[in-house]
Amino acid sequence: MYKELVIPQRTIMTPGPVEAEPRVLRAMSAPILGQYDPDFLNIMDEVQDLLRYTFQTENQQTFVVDGTARAGIEAVLSGIIEKGDKVYVPIFGRFGHLLTEISKRAGGDVHTTEIEWGTTYSFQQLKKEIDEFNPKVVAIVHGETSTGRMQPLKELGHYCREKDILLVVDSVATLTGTEFKTDEWKIDAVIGGTQKCLSVPTGMAPLTYNERVEKILLERKKIEQGLDKDSFNDRMISTNYLDLSQIQEYWSPKRLNHHTEATSMLYALREGLRIIKEESLEERIKRHKYNEKALVEGLEAMGLEIFGEEFDKVPTVTCVMVPDGVVESEVRLEMIRNFSVEIAAAFGPLTGKIWRIGSMGYSCRKENVLRVLSALEATLIRKGVKVNRGEALQAALNVYEA
Amino acid sequence: MYKELVIPQRTIMTPGPVEAEPRVLRAMSAPILGQYDPDFLNIMDEVQDLLRYTFQTENQQTFVVDGTARAGIEAVLSGIIEKGDKVYVPIFGRFGHLLTEISKRAGGDVHTTEIEWGTTYSFQQLKKEIDEFNPKVVAIVHGETSTGRMQPLKELGHYCREKDILLVVDSVATLTGTEFKTDEWKIDAVIGGTQKCLSVPTGMAPLTYNERVEKILLERKKIEQGLDKDSFNDRMISTNYLDLSQIQEYWSPKRLNHHTEATSMLYALREGLRIIKEESLEERIKRHKYNEKALVEGLEAMGLEIFGEEFDKVPTVTCVMVPDGVVESEVRLEMIRNFSVEIAAAFGPLTGKIWRIGSMGYSCRKENVLRVLSALEATLIRKGVKVNRGEALQAALNVYEA
Repeated sequence: MYKELVIPQRTIMTPGPVEAEPRVLRAMSAPILGQYDPDFLNIMDEVQDLLRYTFQTENQQTFVVDGTARAGIEAVLSGIIEKGDKVYVPIFGRFGHLLTEISKRAGGDVHTTEIEWGTTYSFQQLKKEIDEFNPKVVAIVHGETSTGRMQPLKELGHYCREKDILLVVDSVATLTGTEFKTDEWKIDAVIGGTQKCLSVPTGMAPLTYNERVEKILLERKKIEQGLDKDSFNDRMISTNYLDLSQIQEYWSPKRLNHHTEATSMLYALREGLRIIKEESLEERIKRHKYNEKALVEGLEAMGLEIFGEEFDKVPTVTCVMVPDGVVESEVRLEMIRNFSVEIAAAFGPLTGKIWRIGSMGYSCRKENVLRVLSALEATLIRKGVKVNRGEALQAALNVYEA
Repeated sequence: MYKELVIPQRTIMTPGPVEAEPRVLRAMSAPILGQYDPDFLNIMDEVQDLLRYTFQTENQQTFVVDGTARAGIEAVLSGIIEKGDKVYVPIFGRFGHLLTEISKRAGGDVHTTEIEWGTTYSFQQLKKEIDEFNPKVVAIVHGETSTGRMQPLKELGHYCREKDILLVVDSVATLTGTEFKTDEWKIDAVIGGTQKCLSVPTGMAPLTYNERVEKILLERKKIEQGLDKDSFNDRMISTNYLDLSQIQEYWSPKRLNHHTEATSMLYALREGLRIIKEESLEERIKRHKYNEKALVEGLEAMGLEIFGEEFDKVPTVTCVMVPDGVVESEVRLEMIRNFSVEIAAAFGPLTGKIWRIGSMGYSCRKENVLRVLSALEATLIRKGVKVNRGEALQAALNVYEA
């Protein structure tokens, strides 16, 4: 027989999944409602409305896909990319590769550029590629958690709109942790994740898209066999589960049957979004910036080197160089084992070279910043690394007490 | 500002989502763990082991897909069906149409038969079609919630194995509510749902498949771009999110990065499966049969007619004829409004003709059976229907007191 579930209380300072808001965790213990229960339909409407605020959009089509963030990305890309469609993906880290992978599987003729991990694109670089390749779709990551970089999007958005190109943005790591303005930046489709700055458990992908995207979806629409007259469409989307042309009808007043919406996760998301609205996006973004400052100043005071430059750093992820002679995985495991504090390893070319420290959502608070600095310093000292003892916490406290 | 979440306490007697076990709801409020936290990896292993018991299988590949049941169905079918592959779907209700829809989108050359809703296939009927069409895959529903029918599978399973045909079964409505023996019945792949007899919230699709299925997946495998050397495979699966060849590696000791496993839902599933093991499948199946008997005898004593025959009735769903002159939706809505008791409408040709009453998992218990009989009787009387007043509860109590 298995024992009762016992979960240790971690301080999660990774780029996700991060600690969930306690109110969110409590909301999930509410009883189940049927998917067509009037009270449940009302919650669906409320979530849509709260998501519009979160994404800073007026888009009617703003809802969630029941899956992790990559399910949302695949839903959008497989909905708008048809066989042979030209797609441009500017890669600057691991998740640009994921956008490429998904676009290729959707049948796209995918053009990529890749710059050194730890840098971002200038608008001129992107413009040049767009002018040469002339894609139907540009898909790009906003905050690359693999490198801690943030790609500016406003100029790109306006240029894509001008050229009638669809711009799809992965804002999984940034949504509500830093400024993100869907409509103002002219972004056609955006996908977020629940387990990052929203501080809701993993398993839902909030997304939004405008009428330019919806037009394509409607052209490719096929009514599900068995629900109405069987329809045929030779441009039909290859997935049923992630077919946005069907899912948007389930989220519309028609409530056309598709999947059964994930009840408890929707309660969680509603509570998480309600907390965001109570705090306000403006205050929330300031809070992320404030704690990032304390974290960065602490790490630097300890004598560690921050990876990458300041001007394009994403405020929600801080990458720090692993000191020479240290096996990075040992440090991480000892931090969990002794302090119950988790930070993240790196991917690809950065593996073993940097740690990634997240400061997202509910995890992004003073005691967590102080805990991660303390645990990292003590662990490094035990590994024989020369650090400036005691300085990190003082530097961080100086920020908090200023 | 939005109000605090207030969820009414429903008695959910539909074929899902049903009431979640209170212990399951509490498990979800445990704090988040990182996806590579050793404690979380351990929970993943435990869930796999518990699922093997649930599916009655020794299959190594037994895990969950993070999405609703249809995500699991699509993962299996899009993994094994390649363009032009012959697939046979014997339809006997709404969810046979869903299997067809998904098989077609996966590129299958799909042959279907459809029999009158409310009946099931004899083995001879299925054998004849299989012999004539000679498919690579047969995909069939075990318990059709749309009609309340249960298709016998044992002979079909043995015959498919003999002919080297892959048999894929949707056991979403039956798993742990009635006997289901994956290995003994020679079924190659099975998909369940959490929100039915498992009494866990919607949003995960438990599944299992054997080495015959795995062989095809491995032939079609492509390593995700950005994780290792980019691999090319012209038989590659079209979906990334539901690519079982990748997901099975995330669930293997390799733990190759794919999605971020849905933390709180996995806690919920572990607790739900633990309850099933504590109760034992044998006792759980008996409990479903026992409450079904009380429900059916109650409905008949009230003077209502049960839809379909007894020999192929699925024990977890009872379909009952809507009395003449009654608008079925009015009755359902009044039952919710006055009694907080939910029963389900029907699909397709049965719309307006039957109600579907579920008795699944935690919802399948004495007080719920008595509540649904009481609420239905009172509501029908107010609609002017002549019923045998007071008889339903007496008949049900007779079963419980026997």
